[in-house]
Amino acid sequence: MSYNLLKGKKGIIFGALDENSIAWKTAVRAHEEGAEFVLTNAPIAMRMGQIKSLAEQTGSEIIPADATNMEDLENLVEKSMEILGGKIDFVLHSIGMSVNVRKGRAYTDQNYGFTEKGWDVSALSFHKVCQTLYQKDAMNEWGSIVALTYMAAQRTFPDYNDMADNKAYLESIARSFGYFFGKDKKVRVNTISQSPTPTTAGQGVKGFDGFIAYAEQMSPLGNATADDCADYTVSLFSDLTKKVTMQNLFHDGGFSNTGVSNEVMDKFIQ
Amino acid sequence: MSYNLLKGKKGIIFGALDENSIAWKTAVRAHEEGAEFVLTNAPIAMRMGQIKSLAEQTGSEIIPADATNMEDLENLVEKSMEILGGKIDFVLHSIGMSVNVRKGRAYTDQNYGFTEKGWDVSALSFHKVCQTLYQKDAMNEWGSIVALTYMAAQRTFPDYNDMADNKAYLESIARSFGYFFGKDKKVRVNTISQSPTPTTAGQGVKGFDGFIAYAEQMSPLGNATADDCADYTVSLFSDLTKKVTMQNLFHDGGFSNTGVSNEVMDKFIQ
Amino acid sequence: MSYNLLKGKKGIIFGALDENSIAWKTAVRAHEEGAEFVLTNAPIAMRMGQIKSLAEQTGSEIIPADATNMEDLENLVEKSMEILGGKIDFVLHSIGMSVNVRKGRAYTDQNYGFTEKGWDVSALSFHKVCQTLYQKDAMNEWGSIVALTYMAAQRTFPDYNDMADNKAYLESIARSFGYFFGKDKKVRVNTISQSPTPTTAGQGVKGFDGFIAYAEQMSPLGNATADDCADYTVSLFSDLTKKVTMQNLFHDGGFSNTGVSNEVMDKFIQ
Amino acid sequence: MSYNLLKGKKGIIFGALDENSIAWKTAVRAHEEGAEFVLTNAPIAMRMGQIKSLAEQTGSEIIPADATNMEDLENLVEKSMEILGGKIDFVLHSIGMSVNVRKGRAYTDQNYGFTEKGWDVSALSFHKVCQTLYQKDAMNEWGSIVALTYMAAQRTFPDYNDMADNKAYLESIARSFGYFFGKDKKVRVNTISQSPTPTTAGQGVKGFDGFIAYAEQMSPLGNATADDCADYTVSLFSDLTKKVTMQNLFHDGGFSNTGVSNEVMDKFIQ
Repeated sequence: MSYNLLKGKKGIIFGALDENSIAWKTAVRAHEEGAEFVLTNAPIAMRMGQIKSLAEQTGSEIIPADATNMEDLENLVEKSMEILGGKIDFVLHSIGMSVNVRKGRAYTDQNYGFTEKGWDVSALSFHKVCQTLYQKDAMNEWGSIVALTYMAAQRTFPDYNDMADNKAYLESIARSFGYFFGKDKKVRVNTISQSPTPTTAGQGVKGFDGFIAYAEQMSPLGNATADDCADYTVSLFSDLTKKVTMQNLFHDGGFSNTGVSNEVMDKFIQ
Repeated sequence: MSYNLLKGKKGIIFGALDENSIAWKTAVRAHEEGAEFVLTNAPIAMRMGQIKSLAEQTGSEIIPADATNMEDLENLVEKSMEILGGKIDFVLHSIGMSVNVRKGRAYTDQNYGFTEKGWDVSALSFHKVCQTLYQKDAMNEWGSIVALTYMAAQRTFPDYNDMADNKAYLESIARSFGYFFGKDKKVRVNTISQSPTPTTAGQGVKGFDGFIAYAEQMSPLGNATADDCADYTVSLFSDLTKKVTMQNLFHDGGFSNTGVSNEVMDKFIQ
Repeated sequence: MSYNLLKGKKGIIFGALDENSIAWKTAVRAHEEGAEFVLTNAPIAMRMGQIKSLAEQTGSEIIPADATNMEDLENLVEKSMEILGGKIDFVLHSIGMSVNVRKGRAYTDQNYGFTEKGWDVSALSFHKVCQTLYQKDAMNEWGSIVALTYMAAQRTFPDYNDMADNKAYLESIARSFGYFFGKDKKVRVNTISQSPTPTTAGQGVKGFDGFIAYAEQMSPLGNATADDCADYTVSLFSDLTKKVTMQNLFHDGGFSNTGVSNEVMDKFIQ
Repeated sequence: MSYNLLKGKKGIIFGALDENSIAWKTAVRAHEEGAEFVLTNAPIAMRMGQIKSLAEQTGSEIIPADATNMEDLENLVEKSMEILGGKIDFVLHSIGMSVNVRKGRAYTDQNYGFTEKGWDVSALSFHKVCQTLYQKDAMNEWGSIVALTYMAAQRTFPDYNDMADNKAYLESIARSFGYFFGKDKKVRVNTISQSPTPTTAGQGVKGFDGFIAYAEQMSPLGNATADDCADYTVSLFSDLTKKVTMQNLFHDGGFSNTGVSNEVMDKFIQ
């Protein structure tokens, strides 16, 4: 189903790795809704991914950029405006990686070099993206910037490790930059706090399948899928949500406000 | 602008009083987006309002109902399904009134008869609406129920009086009923926490103009208007937000997450 | 252990039913800490309870009062000041009851007469207590008013039924009255959101044992007991917490900010 | 007034610079309450500060430590246990500094080297402290770790700059480490979100006097002072709060839950 919700809008989408990615599915939906956009990912991620087929499918160009590198980001933003023929209306930040998780370091036994790297990639990169867009005056009025996050920023999920702290920092950037982008540029900045999603990235987390099952049973509407998230993100890019800003928006089938479900309680009642 | 976002969807809209009402503007937008719906309001409010012209404009029928009266609500739901030819996809609850405010009673000097009446009209009515829809199995799967609320449910605005407590109760109903509606019927229930809005109802609150000005200066994108709210409500009725449930969604230009703005601070710096 | 934290302080304690009650244990601890106070409960609850032995143990007088009845409350406050020889320093509100729960009515099938009665007893009674104290100017400066609540006010626990909405209303009263009590009387008002506690009242809730076990496994420090709660309440009555007001304070061994524990996850991993 | 609340307890206090410091006042109060502790600060801060007079006043030893340096922290923890003759019962982390603020860089024009330095000092240092204590098994059961934070972690105060994001990360560490410290060691970890306080550090923030005045007028009980905070911190170190963990506790005279005060509104009404 398509509504032409994003007709004439121009965007930049970070983080499409393969067809399981939320960013990938958002790109597909944004294309269906009439948007034009540039795809970007880290050079290393692009080698592993199938982003070229997405570019073909959506008529997009790809500009590689390391989102922790200011020169790369400046080049990305400039080139994107050239390619798209004007300022940007929407941006999706879907980037995250914990070196501590990858290397099997417990939260209580962090290697702080790993911690810093994960913070830079997963959290500070969002500030760098925003600062580049802000300083280059690259966003159209009533544009929309969205980053993906997870509820571990509010409550502890033990295996989520230092990504919890990174997501808390990321969500704070959305509020802080949302203030300045709102006042100075009439641009909104929000985060979507998504259900655990079986993307290729998500699957790196230990016990992820069990966790998906737990979340499914805790969520009155079931987990939000990557497809659901693409739809929701489109609504946040559209002109229907112009005054929503500085928010962390739970998109999780009700998980966040469910204390316990009957299904989960059944496991505790003999 | 219209996107056909609600094409084929059927709804019930409570609380359209006059063309300043959020419910009024939502009805107009829902009509533009292809929805069919029934309008309803309390018999007494209908006498004062101009709801008939809205009905003509949107091709809708009007069914009077006191939202505190279960017989009225049962009649409303049954008749609506007859008129619309099927189950309901969306409901807007935009009802609120504090007798203590109207009668000039301070929060610290409540008349508890007034308090109960205001609670019944402003908060419990939402439970009654939901219970009627639930028991009559009147909602389609992936339907959406929305009630309007205000941030006084989280933080004290002294002139908002007992409406703060009513809104806290209302938001709790959205979570509680959202759980059961989600599990049992795949229906979502949310509240929109809207900027102070110069509706006819809002203007009853003391010092309202000053408060609008304060909120405008505190909100990085400015206050969300009734028109903005109609747009946002349409997005929550649409299929783009199927997995958002049990949430209280701030629609306020960023007010809720702004600690202070530079404009407000300027009044405190010599 | 006693620290003389409440030496010279005068109080009113609502809701001590039997020695499992949090209010009972708080009375014992407040007595150990040097406080003098009046005990009160509804006449009907007093017949069932053993409050007289508590009064003897703590050297307190008992004044029966229906907390929904303004005359009773006025008499209580006046008599308490006479008995204690001055204004009040602390008040504990530990009152709650859902008729819908007692009568086995589901949340989706409320009897609204029951709902109103439960709201009056569990939530509005707190406003009535505060309003009586406020209007009689019965609180000393830097006094402390505490009400007990439960996290169902934020997240749905399906068996908690309409008590969720009542607790949301109660917590809102703490914020609203906290504003006026703070500004006008320098008195603080807070709620403690306590772990599920196997009191005589708590045991009325369906599946309560299973729920206690679930909460125990979700809470990194285990559930807070009634004894723990008495200690914490004493700290909130003391002069160490003078600037804490309008807060809902989670006292739950960490449950509220735990997304999932390893123990709970183990039930979802094969 | 002293209650012997901390009799026999051993602690480590970070961040006492001069007698305006919250850490300084907490040390004085902890000493009054019977605690023994080690004082620590960065070598550079110690040269500027008057920590020696505090050490004399409280009978404490000083161990310099850069809280971003793991060797320093390991030495600090080991030496502290030697000096105090056993494991630690309480820790206060009161450390924070933004290089961007000091160098006059706007939030939208960060130098990311400065950002990283401020994050390491203000936020990651808390993880490093916790990890050192955890790995050395240096905390007694039912010990208490507290870090100071500010509400900018939840809402934007434009001049607070990147400290907002640092505080959000710090508060997340308290939750994350609180989970593991609770489960594994029966130790609680919390943050206190304190009113703006005219410490020597706080005064570095632009427009700080105006901000203090604004917060004073927004807080029904007025701003919490450094002395108030010392009292509150003592209560969190005491055995009265054993089951409070993973919480961010607002200690602010009600600011956090006040939407607007009448005093502030008066500036917007003609």
